[in-house]
Amino acid sequence: MGQVYWRKGNKNGIFSLFFRPNIKRSYYVLSGIDDAINKIIKFKFNNDDILYLKSLSIFNNDFLEYLANFHFTGSIRAMKEGTIFFPNEPVVEINAPILEGQLLETLLINEVHFQTSLATKASRIVNSSNGADLIDFSARRTYGTEASLKASRNSYISGFSSTSNVEAGKIYNIPLAGTMGHSYILSFENEFNSYKEFLTEFPNNLVFLVDTYDTIEGIKNVIKLTKDYDCKVKAIRLDSGDIKALSFKAREMLDIAGLNETKIIVSGSMDEYSINKLINKNNCPIDIFGVGSNYGVSADLPVMGCVYKLVETEGRPVSKNSSGKQYLPYSKQVYRYYENNIFDHDIVTKQDNILDKGIALIDQVFDKGDLMYSKLPIDEIRTYVAYQLRSLPEKYKDLDSAEKFNVEVKI
Amino acid sequence: MGQVYWRKGNKNGIFSLFFRPNIKRSYYVLSGIDDAINKIIKFKFNNDDILYLKSLSIFNNDFLEYLANFHFTGSIRAMKEGTIFFPNEPVVEINAPILEGQLLETLLINEVHFQTSLATKASRIVNSSNGADLIDFSARRTYGTEASLKASRNSYISGFSSTSNVEAGKIYNIPLAGTMGHSYILSFENEFNSYKEFLTEFPNNLVFLVDTYDTIEGIKNVIKLTKDYDCKVKAIRLDSGDIKALSFKAREMLDIAGLNETKIIVSGSMDEYSINKLINKNNCPIDIFGVGSNYGVSADLPVMGCVYKLVETEGRPVSKNSSGKQYLPYSKQVYRYYENNIFDHDIVTKQDNILDKGIALIDQVFDKGDLMYSKLPIDEIRTYVAYQLRSLPEKYKDLDSAEKFNVEVKI
Repeated sequence: MGQVYWRKGNKNGIFSLFFRPNIKRSYYVLSGIDDAINKIIKFKFNNDDILYLKSLSIFNNDFLEYLANFHFTGSIRAMKEGTIFFPNEPVVEINAPILEGQLLETLLINEVHFQTSLATKASRIVNSSNGADLIDFSARRTYGTEASLKASRNSYISGFSSTSNVEAGKIYNIPLAGTMGHSYILSFENEFNSYKEFLTEFPNNLVFLVDTYDTIEGIKNVIKLTKDYDCKVKAIRLDSGDIKALSFKAREMLDIAGLNETKIIVSGSMDEYSINKLINKNNCPIDIFGVGSNYGVSADLPVMGCVYKLVETEGRPVSKNSSGKQYLPYSKQVYRYYENNIFDHDIVTKQDNILDKGIALIDQVFDKGDLMYSKLPIDEIRTYVAYQLRSLPEKYKDLDSAEKFNVEVKI
Repeated sequence: MGQVYWRKGNKNGIFSLFFRPNIKRSYYVLSGIDDAINKIIKFKFNNDDILYLKSLSIFNNDFLEYLANFHFTGSIRAMKEGTIFFPNEPVVEINAPILEGQLLETLLINEVHFQTSLATKASRIVNSSNGADLIDFSARRTYGTEASLKASRNSYISGFSSTSNVEAGKIYNIPLAGTMGHSYILSFENEFNSYKEFLTEFPNNLVFLVDTYDTIEGIKNVIKLTKDYDCKVKAIRLDSGDIKALSFKAREMLDIAGLNETKIIVSGSMDEYSINKLINKNNCPIDIFGVGSNYGVSADLPVMGCVYKLVETEGRPVSKNSSGKQYLPYSKQVYRYYENNIFDHDIVTKQDNILDKGIALIDQVFDKGDLMYSKLPIDEIRTYVAYQLRSLPEKYKDLDSAEKFNVEVKI
């Protein structure tokens, strides 16, 4: 494709990135824009790359020469990191020599799809938690190290309070949290001694895992520790068994022992569905959830319909007819309308059709190769997401049967 | 945990990594060992890391000093890259000062889980394809760039023939394949002209996407091109609509036009289930599948129960009782028994219990910090996987109702 574009003079094209509707997601939290921008700035073909492409004996030498000097010279407009958006709304638009837009396709879809997938999943988990604290425990279950760092980043953006990923804590300045593992307890002759040694080392940071041998006995050992050594236990962690029953029992035992301030952490295949059931349906006295496996790969929906389509070329609107895969032509803008600080509706229209009153969500990021954008600090993105989530009525956030948000198309 | 281990003298521990049973997978293809080894060799705390840990005001300065000088000094035994294994069989065992084993936990689980997940998924897709070629199209749907490269690598290890990920082709020496996208066709005034321009540029590499406007018209345009310009078309690609009906119709149209050698490529949410249905249930005349979205995140099972447990410490066997999470203690070996070159059964036993006849699957990788392992070239891993898959009877590979392979435990 690229070599044909190049030989034909590399005329202009406008590409639009958007997400198709999915029954499992009623809204999306945009993420990956900031990292995509960094990757676009660095997008180059080095000597090794050119030698490799040459070795394939497919490409024209002049075309490879063009690639050797490649850097992005086009314009990009995008919603800003953390914006809540809806199906079929354009979130990124590239206006560039068509080959440049084409070369960025995989990079842009990859980065925006996977980070949006994570930020959206995290936001659903936050919505279901009714104020319980959430810790990101996903590092072991993500697809690689890069993915684990981004999972932590997106959990924090969407409202988790901390992560157990120390590297992510360092890179993104996210608060750290974690608890001992079963292997720690098993390395001692008995559970009580393992707690006692932890107390010796960290008297002000006591969080105990209680299910290694028997949860009730584990809680008794914690209580005995507080009696024997007059210490304060911040929290206990339940990681297996009948969590609903055990959380009530644990709360009762802790309260009777006077440990009213000791919190209960729950982990083990948690996600928005299980948290909703425990917290909202059963009123379980759980203060904190550690969320890992089902978050780090967005397990109930690991793949979303994020696509990148040519919508205009040299002023001519384009679209395709492929069965079930039609989309809106033209370069576009999305306007958001609030009523009393609450999301009311959006309008998608042509970019040059300026509407008043609504807030235009798509801003300039690159202007003919020049970066026009400055990244927000992660805490500001987090605040922006939280503000929008408060402004999005509950009926659009229901886990299973959310109403469809009103997005009008005026093309 | 680490600081307590350190203060208590960092005694020895043996950790075992294994996968729990899952109804959706009857066997696993081990991957990630080679990359995990590379990461273990590089596992260090640099100055920035130590300063960050110090800033948390949690750790003892002497402990941080220990971390600043950390490198792996223990022993590791593992099955080799590409080995087919079964639930609950140990695949990696670490024998090391307990803190070292603990520090590697997340790294090891992450790398081995995600790459094994991909290699296993790819192998199921290969099994279902009945000899049709498979192209990895997953780059846009993986969780990041690192994951996309590893997705290509694992697809090739398990028997895919090529990848559309050019960077992966370069790094791993995997054959490249790909086709034009819809945007290419849309950038021209009409489909026929887009084909004609492609012919001008790549007369010997003609693969055409035919569903942009109307699949039947697209095929007619391809046939017209071969008549008008006397060219050979390698393949056409169907990406939407009723694939079963369209593949038969396309084959018929191509054959009538004398294009018997033009192959049919199918893409669009393909996985082992859809390929099995098209190829084995309906005998569709499809030569090649492009597999992307559902492969790159192992969409039907993105998370598997890959765990890492302390099994022995200073000669004492250990296990935990947590509800539903019991496991086998002791350092172990797995022996495989063949009958007439066919997998017959495995035996899991204590490491020091040497059995005759069976093939011991777990080899030394590190011996007290010294690397004892040399990586196989990717093509040898691929050959090894293919050999084992041929040796694994069909009844253990059925997509939905595979028999359980006989793994005896003799502890």
